[in-house]
Parts: sequence; structure tokens; C-alpha cells
Amino acid sequence: MKLAPSILSADFSNLIGDVKRVEDAGCDMLHIDVMDGHFVPNITIGPLIVESLQGKTTLPFDVHLMIEDPDQYIPQFAKAGAHIISVHSEACVHLHRTIQLIKAHNVKAAVALNPGTPLNVIEHVLEDLDMVLIMTVNPGFGGQSFIEPMIEKIRSLKKIIEDRGLSIDIQVDGGIKVDNVKKVIDAGANIIVAGSAIFGSENIPEIVTKFRENSRA
Amino acid sequence: MKLAPSILSADFSNLIGDVKRVEDAGCDMLHIDVMDGHFVPNITIGPLIVESLQGKTTLPFDVHLMIEDPDQYIPQFAKAGAHIISVHSEACVHLHRTIQLIKAHNVKAAVALNPGTPLNVIEHVLEDLDMVLIMTVNPGFGGQSFIEPMIEKIRSLKKIIEDRGLSIDIQVDGGIKVDNVKKVIDAGANIIVAGSAIFGSENIPEIVTKFRENSRA
Amino acid sequence: MKLAPSILSADFSNLIGDVKRVEDAGCDMLHIDVMDGHFVPNITIGPLIVESLQGKTTLPFDVHLMIEDPDQYIPQFAKAGAHIISVHSEACVHLHRTIQLIKAHNVKAAVALNPGTPLNVIEHVLEDLDMVLIMTVNPGFGGQSFIEPMIEKIRSLKKIIEDRGLSIDIQVDGGIKVDNVKKVIDAGANIIVAGSAIFGSENIPEIVTKFRENSRA
Amino acid sequence: MKLAPSILSADFSNLIGDVKRVEDAGCDMLHIDVMDGHFVPNITIGPLIVESLQGKTTLPFDVHLMIEDPDQYIPQFAKAGAHIISVHSEACVHLHRTIQLIKAHNVKAAVALNPGTPLNVIEHVLEDLDMVLIMTVNPGFGGQSFIEPMIEKIRSLKKIIEDRGLSIDIQVDGGIKVDNVKKVIDAGANIIVAGSAIFGSENIPEIVTKFRENSRA
Amino acid sequence: MKLAPSILSADFSNLIGDVKRVEDAGCDMLHIDVMDGHFVPNITIGPLIVESLQGKTTLPFDVHLMIEDPDQYIPQFAKAGAHIISVHSEACVHLHRTIQLIKAHNVKAAVALNPGTPLNVIEHVLEDLDMVLIMTVNPGFGGQSFIEPMIEKIRSLKKIIEDRGLSIDIQVDGGIKVDNVKKVIDAGANIIVAGSAIFGSENIPEIVTKFRENSRA
Amino acid sequence: MKLAPSILSADFSNLIGDVKRVEDAGCDMLHIDVMDGHFVPNITIGPLIVESLQGKTTLPFDVHLMIEDPDQYIPQFAKAGAHIISVHSEACVHLHRTIQLIKAHNVKAAVALNPGTPLNVIEHVLEDLDMVLIMTVNPGFGGQSFIEPMIEKIRSLKKIIEDRGLSIDIQVDGGIKVDNVKKVIDAGANIIVAGSAIFGSENIPEIVTKFRENSRA
Repeated sequence: MKLAPSILSADFSNLIGDVKRVEDAGCDMLHIDVMDGHFVPNITIGPLIVESLQGKTTLPFDVHLMIEDPDQYIPQFAKAGAHIISVHSEACVHLHRTIQLIKAHNVKAAVALNPGTPLNVIEHVLEDLDMVLIMTVNPGFGGQSFIEPMIEKIRSLKKIIEDRGLSIDIQVDGGIKVDNVKKVIDAGANIIVAGSAIFGSENIPEIVTKFRENSRA
Repeated sequence: MKLAPSILSADFSNLIGDVKRVEDAGCDMLHIDVMDGHFVPNITIGPLIVESLQGKTTLPFDVHLMIEDPDQYIPQFAKAGAHIISVHSEACVHLHRTIQLIKAHNVKAAVALNPGTPLNVIEHVLEDLDMVLIMTVNPGFGGQSFIEPMIEKIRSLKKIIEDRGLSIDIQVDGGIKVDNVKKVIDAGANIIVAGSAIFGSENIPEIVTKFRENSRA
Repeated sequence: MKLAPSILSADFSNLIGDVKRVEDAGCDMLHIDVMDGHFVPNITIGPLIVESLQGKTTLPFDVHLMIEDPDQYIPQFAKAGAHIISVHSEACVHLHRTIQLIKAHNVKAAVALNPGTPLNVIEHVLEDLDMVLIMTVNPGFGGQSFIEPMIEKIRSLKKIIEDRGLSIDIQVDGGIKVDNVKKVIDAGANIIVAGSAIFGSENIPEIVTKFRENSRA
Repeated sequence: MKLAPSILSADFSNLIGDVKRVEDAGCDMLHIDVMDGHFVPNITIGPLIVESLQGKTTLPFDVHLMIEDPDQYIPQFAKAGAHIISVHSEACVHLHRTIQLIKAHNVKAAVALNPGTPLNVIEHVLEDLDMVLIMTVNPGFGGQSFIEPMIEKIRSLKKIIEDRGLSIDIQVDGGIKVDNVKKVIDAGANIIVAGSAIFGSENIPEIVTKFRENSRA
Repeated sequence: MKLAPSILSADFSNLIGDVKRVEDAGCDMLHIDVMDGHFVPNITIGPLIVESLQGKTTLPFDVHLMIEDPDQYIPQFAKAGAHIISVHSEACVHLHRTIQLIKAHNVKAAVALNPGTPLNVIEHVLEDLDMVLIMTVNPGFGGQSFIEPMIEKIRSLKKIIEDRGLSIDIQVDGGIKVDNVKKVIDAGANIIVAGSAIFGSENIPEIVTKFRENSRA
Repeated sequence: MKLAPSILSADFSNLIGDVKRVEDAGCDMLHIDVMDGHFVPNITIGPLIVESLQGKTTLPFDVHLMIEDPDQYIPQFAKAGAHIISVHSEACVHLHRTIQLIKAHNVKAAVALNPGTPLNVIEHVLEDLDMVLIMTVNPGFGGQSFIEPMIEKIRSLKKIIEDRGLSIDIQVDGGIKVDNVKKVIDAGANIIVAGSAIFGSENIPEIVTKFRENSRA
């Protein structure tokens, strides 16, 4: 299991401080939530903030674009140091093309699916993906808890990937804590996004250890 | 003259550090450039970043919304501590209403005008404004220099304000440096936004002093 | 079988008169067609009209939102007395979230599907629904007749609902008359929307009786 | 002075009843507020409701389109019996063309201006207009009172019309009551839209009389 | 196999000259690529250009609409002489209705699918179609080669059509040349769109012959 | 006076033939009407058609972009050989920026104004322009005649240009024929767009001569 703490729960007044804390605690990548106020009803951060961290952490940048027309901004995020970029299928009329655009910038490509979105929207692009991001809450809205039926969705996706003999990461994002991480891992996910559960903790190394232990238990 | 350093040129990996530097150097407010990737071709920062600075600086937050449908986000920026909010006339179908919405949140209200936008778009709301922001470059596009004919626009605006016996600040944003600040002040502006000229300086107090000296010279 | 006469065929100059007529004839709910001129090429009625009927009829309000961005108007229709609200899957980027929003207002939630829309768009939200509305004509366009292949779609949906052991109503809307009601009931539908067939009748109780008889025959 | 009661304040459950009441009280036309939930944040009524009144009242229909892309719906409202149609300048990229379209349907043409909109947007179409509608509140938002600076705007418009030797009605809409009608009439308006002030009155003939008396006083 | 040379590779300065060349070489229809710069990032040609060829060639016009809101332009293309019109499922909220609109103009109806789009988006309209167009590159973007996994998609579509006992053409468009035509034919396609491979050839009859030979080999 | 025949009236099946005809008749430039079906309700031609004429005529290309978001296509038209590009003020949120973009491609820059659009929308960019295009019909709609009040608009523009001591061409487009050309020239225009009046003539040189004679008469 890999742990991807979500930057949204970090302290933006001293971002590198918080990023170093999760790096030191052994997290695996930094999940960067980009919202444009159009695809989702919130504006968060853009390429400049990502760029400001470049060269200051060893954590790979896992950029989750919750924006309309992502093609327009993929080059900037690539230049800002993105290791992997996720685009939402619901935001892409030309999904196959968008994925090629990410790869043409030597960045790993992923597709994110809203909770209500069926898996078949990626059936013709699956071979081109490095990761699928299953949203387990609705992106951009506050105060939600983990949507239980997503366990079944993760399981279905895992089966499709195995049936095709592919090797694609399954990331989950939304409402995941130490006490429910096991079931998403058991269902097939291998990368966990966690926000306040990690950054909000007083003892980050301890919580990271618990995530890892519970995911194995 | 008041100086409003633009947050876009700060180091986002340690934002409060840079903010304190301009605060200590005697700047008057913090200019916060919010872009949504739709009204302008760039995504910068949203309410969360503003909120992270709340209570950590004495600088008032001067929030410049370069976004479509600003009504949707005004409450969040008000809550995040905005002292004044500027909306673009080009983004507001119901401009009068948007201004009332800002004021209903006990925030000062301003309208920003793109370089090509005529002054008469604010003639029926001028009495309701605390500030007008004259853009002296095109917002959201990089690598531009100060647009000279804007001097005349500032002068015209100053005259209109005086003719009506109003007391409204004139802010200018774009390509202003120590060597051209005087002419915008002479034309009638009294609040200067400066980005790299300030944050990019090795000696911020010195550059702030120069801005002030030159504006008077 | 439940009968839901569509308000679109009522006389809007004396709406409560017509509504009482279908209430007296034993209809089960009032189908309220809301169109915004954007999702469909017609503008019909909004919350004010629904509100005007509140407290004046015992018929539950079955509100069918043929509008873009339904989240914006769900609170108003809830307040106007909606008993159930249907949103179109084609209008919802965050379908799961929209359904939760309806339920958070203590209103029953339904999803409507255009004739061309596949059933799998609701596979991950089915457990959250009280009803599915299968359009048997294209909403918002005039002069159409019942689309025969929709019988098969109703049958497929009924099977999915039964296979999952759920209890969800299936409503059908478009071109249904006394002479074709039986086949949609046989296929699995249990709520019938009818417009001119009911309001256009000179003897509404008689036509209601025929609908009920034919649906059983 | 002509009085145009706004249908928005009528009882939609028995519309013709309320319409007859204002007709009997000697009002001059019926102001019909069409909102699409996109140009303004509210959905009200469309052509069907207008059509339902056709032939049942002698009041001319004064249709105020607060909608995007009005060209698409002008033919329907013409067919539904509109006597005059107002479109918003802010909603018309091809304003001159939209006005010709209205006239091609043998309907009188008007342009409505939001409170913040300058008068010069109609300078090249003024000769083609039968009426200008000056909004004295922001359309589609609730709970507002008359915007005082609009008096000056009405006066400026009146002067322009007189200077050009034209004969064009000036209609005002928003927050007008018996106690402020005089100043808008004095400024140059000759058609008054009033909603709750009329329909909300227990004695409509009395309130109509007061409007007329006060407008002359 | 039928050959449909794409007009995009013709010489627009002497269009009829090039069209006659492919007609003389025995091609079967003229593939006309209409792009609006919104659905795809390119603007090509509209009805006027199609109309200019009407009556000057015996080739049927196979019009591929890569545009948003195709309903608005279907009547014009029908009038300009279209024999078949393809609309993109990704551009149609009311896909069933759009297909009926094409047929109401006595034009054959087809649906085009982007490479990433799943086949089930047409499952409820398949009976109404004369042709399905499987895009084998992303429409409107330059410099792409044939997307290999589309072979499997063509095969799946062919199977669905056969299982339902239907007779529907399968057209493929993108990166098809004499050396890969066989595999798309073998997978089930029977109409081949080719652009530069045909118009760019110095000997069009020869290349047409090769296409036919290779498709059979 | 310069004559700019509009390509829309040429025979697109043999475009270069018609272009040579107007070149031989002494016309001064080729007016190229680009419509995207969104800014105006028509789709005409894009960069490929312009490119096909490159090097085959000595007429400069006068490209009139009746499209939304022109920035996206300016580079392509520049590359296709445009001599001057006109953008519509109504389509440009960042008008000053769009003009700089045209010039950065070494193309002359112009702004086009719809009949209803006031002149002040260009007051802050006038110094940057090579030409202003006054539309004398509504672009993209058929069957219109010259809008008389535009004479006054041309005159006002001419006066503004002279008052500022500038040297900017005034082009007019719409309904101009040999019998009304004089008044637009007298009002201040110096470049005339004419479509069917030229291409539709049996004797183009004769009609060109008449245009020139009448403009002087």
C-alpha cells in the first residue's frame, strides 16, 4: 500500500514545512488537489504552488485535476514537476487524446471517476493508463463520509484489470481513515489518499504506521 | 501612496515567510490574485490559501477575483478574511448586484477593468465602490509590460471621481516598477500593485522606500 | 399502478381547478414538468407555480427537473412542497452528490433517463434511489409518439432492480395512452405519466378507470 | 402613466382570477416575467402560461425575457399573444438583430437594462425601439429595494430620447410603490411595473387609484 | 468494402477538380469533415462548401459533423445534399431525438464515437441507425496514427449488430492506409475513410485498387 | 476606396477560379468570412481553405473572424497567410490582449463591431488598430439590407480617428451595392466589402468600375 497525503489538509502558510513532515513520516507521494471552481464548486491551487515545491521534497507529485478542459493546463503541471496526472472522465470529451497528451509530456497518466460514474467509460483507454482513481466521496464538496458501495466498484475494477492481465494502480480518495483502510485495500486498491487523517494528526509517523498496519491486518 | 505586493510573486512553499517580509518592510496590504483558468488562462489560488494566512499577518487582504461568476465565491473569500474584493466588470452580468453582495458581507467592494474595457461600464455603480482597479497589463497572461495608454485612462477616471465629489481609491496593477510609478501616481492612482519588483528584490525594505520616494519625487 | 397526470396539459389560467379534477378522479400524484430552455428547448414553470398549489391539493408533487445544474434549484422545489424530485443523469456531472442533496432536503430522489441514455449510468447510485424515470419520448420536444424499444429498456431495468433485491419505482413518461399502458406495466413500470390523455379528456374519471383497467387486463 | 402589474405576484393557482382583478381595476397591461434560471438565478414561467391567458383578458401582454439566447423563444411568445417583448442587452450579442426578429413577428420591441448597465449600449438601436425598460432592482434576485441612482439614469434616457425627437416609452421595474412613484414619473418614466404593491393589496382599485394620483401629484 | 475519401485532404482551391478525380477512380462516397472549433479544436467547412458541389458529382455526400449542438445545422446540411449525416454521441444530450431529426429530413443517420467512448452509448438507438462511425484517431487533432485497440472495438460492434440481426454499416476513420486496411475489414468494418492516403497519392486509381485488393486479400 | 469582395459569394467548388476573376478585375483584397456556428448561427470556412489559396493569388487576405475565443485560432490564420485579421469586440473578454496576439504574428489587427455595439468599446485600443470594421448588417444572418443608421456610426468613428490624429482604415460590410456605396464613402469608410454584388455579377470588371466611379461621384 502506498500513502498519498492530500495537500488540501496541509497548512498553506508554511507548505514545505507540512510536506517535509509527511515525507519524513515515510509517505509515498503528495496528492495535489487542483480545483477550478467550474468542474467542482471550489477553487484550490494551480501550477505555481506545485512549482514552488519542486526540488524541495523527494515525494513524487500526484496531481489530481478536478478542472474542465484539462488539456489546457497539462503542459504547465508537467513543467511544474508532476509525476502523475489524473483527469476526470466526466471532464474529457476526447479522453483518449487527453491521456496521450499527458504521456507526451513524460508524465504518468490516470483517470479519475466520480462516485456515480460507471467503470465502462474507461474500457477503451485502460491499456494506456498507469492508474485509476476511484473517488469515494464527491470531489469538491465538503463534509462527506466514505461511500460504502464504492467497495464493490473497486472490486469490479480490480477484476477487470486482472482479467486483462494489466498492471495498473488503483487509487482511492475520500473519507479513508485508519479504521476503514483495510476494506478498500482488500477490495483491490493499492494507493490511499488521506487528508485530515494524516495532516490533522498530532503524530504523523504514528498515524502512517497505523495506516500501514491496518491495511495489512 | 499605498503599496500592495502581489502574492503571485511570493514563495508559495513558505508563504507566511514572504508575507512577513513585506509586512515588515511597511507594505500596506497584500494583493491576492485569484484565477480560475476560465476568466483568465491560469489557475492560481482559492480561499483555502487566503484562510491559511488569517491571523498571521496584520496586512489587510486585497482579493482580486479574476474568475467567472464571482458571486459563487464571494462568501468564502469574505469568510477567509478579505478586507476588499475586486470583481471584473467583464465577468459580471449583474454588476450592481455583485457589488451589493460583497458589501453585504462587510467587505469593501471594488471593480477591476481590463485594459480594453471602457470606463462607462461602471458609471452607474461608482457611488457604491470603495476602489476601482485599472489593469495596466492583461490579467492572467505572462510577460507583458505596462500599457502606456492606461495613464490616460487613470487620469479620466480620477477626473470622473473628482467631478462627482467621491472618495474612491484608484488601484493599478501590471508592470509597475520604481521607474514608472511616478507617472501612474501623477495620473491619479493611489494604490500600487507590484509583484516581482517587490518579492523578487533582495532588499525589500530598500525597494519599498524607493517606490515611496519615486511616487513623490 | 399509479397515475401521474402531467401538469403541462392542464389549463394554467385556472390551475387549481384542473388539479382538483385529477385529484377527484383518483389520480395518485401530480407530475410537474420543469424546463429551463437550456437542457431542453422549452421553458415551462418554476418553483413559484408549484408553491402556489401547496396546501390546496392532497396530491403529492412529483417534480421532474429537465434543467441544467439542478443542484441550484433543488432547495427551492423542496421548499415548494416537492414529494419526489427527478433529475436527469445527462445534466449531472456529480450525480451521486445531487441525489444526496435531494435526500438531505427530505425529498424522495429519482433519476430520469433520456431515451438514448444507457441504464449503466445509474448502476452506482441505484441503491440510493426511490424511483427511476424512463423517458419514452424525448423530453421538451413536441409531437412525438411512444418509442417502442423503450419496452425492452424498462424490462432490463426491472430485472436489474429485482436482481439486486431492491424496491424502486419505475416511472414512464411519454406517449402513454389507455391502449398502450398494458405493455409498459407488463414490462415492469408501476407509475404512469400521462398528459393530454388525462387532462384533454372530457370525462377524466372514465379515462382514469380505463387506465387502471387496461393496466391489469 | 401606465400601470403594468407583474404576474410574479399573482396567485398562479388561479391566474385568470387575479388577472381579471387587475384588469377590472383599470391596469393597462400585464407584465410577464420570464426567467430561465441561467440569465437570472430563478425559473418562473414560459410560453404555455402566457398562452393559457390568451383570449381571456383584454390586457396587452408585456413580456419581459430575463433569459439567455432570447431569439430562440421570441417566436413562441409572439404566438402566445405577446404585445411587446423586452430583451436584455446583456443577453444579446446581436442586439440589433434580436430587435428586428421581434418586429418581424409584429410585436413591439423593447430593451431592458440591468441597474449597472450603461445607456450607451442602446445608442445604435434606439430608433428601432418602442420602449426601454430601466431595471430599478436587479432582476431575478429577491428582497431588494428601489435603487436610488436609477432616477438619474431615467432622466438621462429621457433627455436622449427627447434630443433625438423620438417617441419611446420608458418603463421602470423594481421596488416601485405608491410613495416613490412620483419621482420616477418626474424623471421621465411613463410605464410602471409593480408586483406585490398591486397584487398583494386587499383593495386593488384603491391602490391603482393611489398610483395614478401620486404619479400626478 | 466502400471507400470514402476525406475532403480534408483535397485541394480546396479547386475542390471539384479533386472530387472528380476520386469519383473517376471509383470511390464510393465523399467524406465531408465539418468542424466548428468547439467540439474539436479546428474549424473546417460548413454547408456552403457542400452546397457548391451539389449536382457536380455523382458521389454521395457522407457528412461527419464534429460540432456541438448538431440539431441546429442538420437542416442546412440536408438541404445542401447530404446523403448520410453522422453526429457524435459525445455532442448529443438528446441522441435519440437528433437521429430522428436527421431521418425526418430524408437523410440516412449515423452516430460517430470517439476512440475513448464505450459502445453502450448507442445501445438504445442502434435499431434507428444506418451506420456507426468508429473513430480510429481522435477527431480534430493532427499527426496521429491508427489506434490499435480500436480493432477490438470494431469487432465488438460487429458482434452486437449481428446478434441483433441488424444490417448497419460500420465506417472507420483515422490512420487507415493500404497496409492496415485488411485488419479493420476483417474486424467488421465495411466503409473506409481515407484522407491523405488517397488525395495525396500521385496515382489515385492505383491506390484505390490497392485498398480494394488489400481489403480482400 | 478599396474593394474587398467577400469569399462567401464565390463558387467554393472552384475557388481559385473566382478569386482570380476578382483579382483580375482589380479588387484590392479578399474578404474571408470565418464563422464557427457559435458566435454567429452559421459555419463557413476555416484555416485550411485560406491556406489552399496561399501563393495562388496576389490579393491580400483580409480575414474576418466571426468566432468565439479567436485567440485559439489566430496563429493558424496567420500561418495560412492572413494579411489582416478582424476580431469581434463582442467575442473578446481580453480585447487588448487579442489585438497584441494578432500583431505578435506580424499580421495587421482590426476590430469588428456588430450594428448594435457602441463605438466606445474600442476607445482604449484604437491606437493599436490598423482598421475598424463597421458591420452594416448583422453578421451570420441571411437576407438583410444595409442598416441606414450605420452611416451616422461611420461618421462618428471617422471623427474620433481624425480627432486623435490617427490613420486607421474604416471597413464596412453588409448590403453595400453600387447605388449606396457613395454614402458610406462620404461618411468616412475607405474599404468596402461586397459579396453577391461582385461575385454574382456577370461582368465583374464592369461592376468594380461602377463601385469606384460611384464612390467618387
